[in-house]
This record gives sequence, C-alpha cells and structure tokens, in this order.
Amino acid sequence: MRGAVLHAPGDIRVEDRPDPRIEKPSDAIIRLAATCVCGSDLWPYRGIEEVSGPAPMGHEYVGIVEEVGSDVRNVKPGQFVVGSFFASDNTCEICQAGYQSRCVHAELVGAIGTQAEYARIPLADGTLVATPELPSDDLVPSLLAASDVLGTGWFGAVAADVQPGKTVAVVGDGAVGLLGVLAAKQLGAERIVVFSRHESRQQLAREFGATDIVTTRGDEGVAEIKELTNGLGAHSVIEAVGTQEAMMQAIRATRPGGHVGYVGVSHDVSLPGDELFFSEVHLHGGPAPVRRFLPDLIQLICDRTIDPGRVFDLTLPLDQAAEGYRAMDERRAIKTLLTV
Amino acid sequence: MRGAVLHAPGDIRVEDRPDPRIEKPSDAIIRLAATCVCGSDLWPYRGIEEVSGPAPMGHEYVGIVEEVGSDVRNVKPGQFVVGSFFASDNTCEICQAGYQSRCVHAELVGAIGTQAEYARIPLADGTLVATPELPSDDLVPSLLAASDVLGTGWFGAVAADVQPGKTVAVVGDGAVGLLGVLAAKQLGAERIVVFSRHESRQQLAREFGATDIVTTRGDEGVAEIKELTNGLGAHSVIEAVGTQEAMMQAIRATRPGGHVGYVGVSHDVSLPGDELFFSEVHLHGGPAPVRRFLPDLIQLICDRTIDPGRVFDLTLPLDQAAEGYRAMDERRAIKTLLTV
Repeated sequence: MRGAVLHAPGDIRVEDRPDPRIEKPSDAIIRLAATCVCGSDLWPYRGIEEVSGPAPMGHEYVGIVEEVGSDVRNVKPGQFVVGSFFASDNTCEICQAGYQSRCVHAELVGAIGTQAEYARIPLADGTLVATPELPSDDLVPSLLAASDVLGTGWFGAVAADVQPGKTVAVVGDGAVGLLGVLAAKQLGAERIVVFSRHESRQQLAREFGATDIVTTRGDEGVAEIKELTNGLGAHSVIEAVGTQEAMMQAIRATRPGGHVGYVGVSHDVSLPGDELFFSEVHLHGGPAPVRRFLPDLIQLICDRTIDPGRVFDLTLPLDQAAEGYRAMDERRAIKTLLTV
Repeated sequence: MRGAVLHAPGDIRVEDRPDPRIEKPSDAIIRLAATCVCGSDLWPYRGIEEVSGPAPMGHEYVGIVEEVGSDVRNVKPGQFVVGSFFASDNTCEICQAGYQSRCVHAELVGAIGTQAEYARIPLADGTLVATPELPSDDLVPSLLAASDVLGTGWFGAVAADVQPGKTVAVVGDGAVGLLGVLAAKQLGAERIVVFSRHESRQQLAREFGATDIVTTRGDEGVAEIKELTNGLGAHSVIEAVGTQEAMMQAIRATRPGGHVGYVGVSHDVSLPGDELFFSEVHLHGGPAPVRRFLPDLIQLICDRTIDPGRVFDLTLPLDQAAEGYRAMDERRAIKTLLTV
C-alpha cells in the first residue's frame, strides 16, 4: 500500500509500505476513507521533535473495517468507523473514568501511521466507534475531525469546565483552538474570546461561535481579556498551542477559581509554582481522551448539528501529502485533509 | 498591648505594640482568645523568606469582638468570632464563586499580626463568622484551627476532589496534612494513605482517619502508593508541603484523571510541562478560601463531630512565643497554640 513516511525534517515521502495485517486477535484492519495532517505532526516535520530514521506518519483516521481479529465483537467488516490516536481497551478502571488516552493498555496509533491506504487498529473493540449508517461523503471531513482535533478541542473545553452563560477564552487559532470555540459554543458559553491575528482563522472562529477576537498576545492579550471581564479574567480558558508563552497567557487570562483546559502538546514548558499557586486556577489537560466523546460527537455530526470538518481548508490526494505538510508549516492552510 | 514581632531570622520577640484601632468603618477590633504559629510563619523565621525590618507575626485568630466600625452589620461586640488569614468582602464575584482568598478587596491579615492581644480585622462583615454561642474553653483550639490549618487542609481535600469510597494520599504530615486526613475522612474517603516518618504524627493521622502509612518519599513513596492501588495511583492527592519534591511526589502519586489539591505554599517550585501534560491529572490549589468553609466547620466543631484542635501539641502563653517557634522549627511540636 501507499503511505506517508517522514525521512528527515521537512522530508515527507509517500511510498510503498507493507500492507498491515491482523497481528493480535483484538486488532482490526481499516481501509482509510480519509486522513489528515495534525499540528503535532509539524513538531517532527520541523525538527523540533527528534526524527530517528524513517517514521510512518499520521494518527487521525476514519474508514471502512476490512477485517477483524477473532476476539473483536463490537465492530465488523463493512462498517464505517472513527477512532482516536490512542487505542484503548475502554474497559479498564482508567478508561471507565473517561481517560482512555491513559488506558492501562493504551497504544499510540501514531506509531502505526494512518496517512496511508490501510491501517491496523489495536484494541478495536475499545477504540473504534461505528457510525449509525454509512455516512454520505460530505460528512467524512467532520467525522475525520472527530478522530482528533474536534475531540481534542472538545476535551479542552470540558477540561476548562465550560459552563452555560460563562466567558471562555481560547489561546491558539489552529484547528484545535477553532474547534475549542465550537465546543464552547455547544456547551453553552455566552462569550467566547479568541486570540488570533489571522483573518481567515478569525472568520472561521466567528462562524463557530466566537463573540470577540483579541489580536494581541502575551501580557498585552491578558490585559485585553481582563478589560473585557471587569478586571477578573475569563471563567474558562482553552490552551491549544503548547508553548511557555501560551500556557502563561492561558493561566493569566483565567480568573481566580477559574479553569484552564490545556491540550496543546507541551514543548519546553516550565510552570512557576508560586505564580500558579497564587493564581488559584484549576489546571487540567493532556492528550485528549477522544474516545470518551466519540459517540456524542458522531451523533452531533450525523445530525448535522455541528460541522467541524470546515477546519479542513486544503484537500489533497494522499500522494501529495508533502504539499499538505508544507502548506500547514507555512500557515497557508489551517489543516490538510488527504483523500485516499 | 503585647504582640510577637520577628526582628530577624530566628529572632521572635513579644513586645509592646500599639493598640489597634478602627481605621475604616468596615473594621472590627477583636480581643484574641487564642492564636498560634503557622507552618508558613517558619519560612521567614528560617530566613528562607526575606525579613525586611521588624514584622508583626501571626494570621490565625479567634476571639471576642470588642468594637466594630460604623458599617459593620454582621457581627457585634461580645460575639465569639473566627476569621481567615485573608480578609474578604464575601460579596464580590470571586468571593461568591467561593474564592474569598482572592477577593477583589482581599487584605492579608498576616500584615496585621494576630500573635497579639488584640487585632484589627478589615472587612469584618465578610471576614468574620460568629459561633452560635460563646464556646466552652475546650472548643477554642478547634475553632482556632478552623481559622487556617483546618480550612486549608479542608480546601486541599476539596481541591483534590475527595469523593466517597475513593483512595486519597496526603503528602506532608504537618498540621495541614493531618487535617487534610481529617477532611478526607469527613468527605467519605475509603482509604487514606499518609506519607510520614514521624511516629507521633502517624499516630494522630490514624486517629484522624488514615488507613495506611507510607514511610518512604519521592519516587520510592510513589512506587508504594502505586503498589497499594493496582499500579494506578490514588484518586486524590493532597499536597501540604510546597516544595518541588512534594509537588512531584503528589503529581506522580495521582492516577490519570485524578486530582491533586495543593495547599503547601510554593517555594522554588517549577513544574515540567511535558510531565504534567502526560500525567493527565487535575491540579488545583493555592491559598485556601477558608471563609467558604467556615460556617460548616464551625458547626462540625460545635457539634463535636470533629476535633481538629488536637493538632496543637504544645500550648504556651503568648509571652513565650519564641519557644513556640523554636519547638516547631525543630519539629518537637506539630503546632503551637498561644494563649492570650
């Protein structure tokens, strides 16, 4: 089969890779309907995360089940399924508490590489959720978004304890931040403030429910949020970047007793204990337990209540993955969908 | 009046200080029934926090209202009152959300110094809570504990989301940690594990409800907690120290999706973002909004449901405050009560 492989920073090639096969009785093989490039794929692409030898890329996926292992009961060949970037058994105590991304048997799907024609999904019974019926083509981008960016933005909003009638701020105007806006809107936030300097992203943020745009960042951005909130700060702040500046901006933009939900993968972040202590915020985040939200998100998408697939502003065939990475790296695209 | 003043590290003197007077119409003057030495008083006493000139000490207090300013409506002379180390209006949006320690008008009572015969309490209407009737003498230590250590341990347990039937670990066997045990027990925790190497503290921890004692600390202590919890970690961990080691121990002892409630005042703590991210814990804490809990705590004490005053294992007259500090500094005493 064809699949994207990162050979070195900036060097993505779509090449022949071995067809995946059932390795354990709990595996399933899916034929990808679509896949995409994640903001976190850019870390190794940019050489900020080390690349040691050719690495299959991709961890977002939707597709048709081709084959299942002998222990698989919950999905069957022919079904359209959505899964998350962490395979999880969905039965252990941690999964049952809603933290499938830290399942005691968790496996990173990223190691498998879903920017490809086929993928082996471990722990298929716990990981995959089938759609009620085969979705029409126009729903595929939204279902693909549910696989990671929507689920991650949604977790950011839940971790930030977004509540009806409250004020939410979103740090980061990438796909996750934008879908954090959509999640906050669905969860009933009254005011949704997005930090963004990019007009096309501001536009999409507004369409997803943002009520205010702040174009400054850092302490200047914090001062603007304070001004919008009686000097107090937002009730909830979603952090969707993962840098030191973004984390401190999120913490400082939150009122005492408020909540920061952080879902940007942390890179070189170090939080000063004394400032955190006196900020009196709640801090929660990490790799999103997307599986927790998948049944509800699939329903909202199939009902056409939400249309998260709009974050894909570039669609290319899998063979042009390299251009898809470049466009995101250069911020020409918010997110690239790859058709398979 | 007489009051304790810190002149330099290790140099506490009880000397004549000016009698406090009503300065604002929202003030009250109280005659102290008892006061005490806080673990946090030891930071400047040990010279770890800078001491710039003579500083009146103490921020824990119970006593009889002597006089009130013209705007005070909720308390009156002759009442026995308990207050917290942050004066708060209890009416602003932050107070109403339960974060009185970050009231928009918060004032540190520590700057006033309650290790004295009298104290001026700002924002008396919001800050002070009167007991239903004049308490008998044997209740005074427990009511004094409510003023800070009990309220702080309680907040640690609430911030750590202690729930009925769950497993709680407590890092720190000082008065706050021990009262975190008491709070966890009251909140219904099934298993309460305390990290402690001191026999007298272990004993009191058991009396307050601890079910397990772990005598190791750091990563060794974490390994022991994991062993007690199926490899997962505690649901809730109360951190009551404030050092880097204690914070990391608390984070690592918590299961994914679990909660760390940290109430030890942070000193030179720096939290690694990536470890925090992948730990997937909830983190909440800071200076305890004791005022939130005071009405309930006073009730529990007056009903004799709880007896937090047992953390005072040394009682001295105010004039011997210096010995009270020394005994705590040398860990000969858990907590010193000063009679006035």
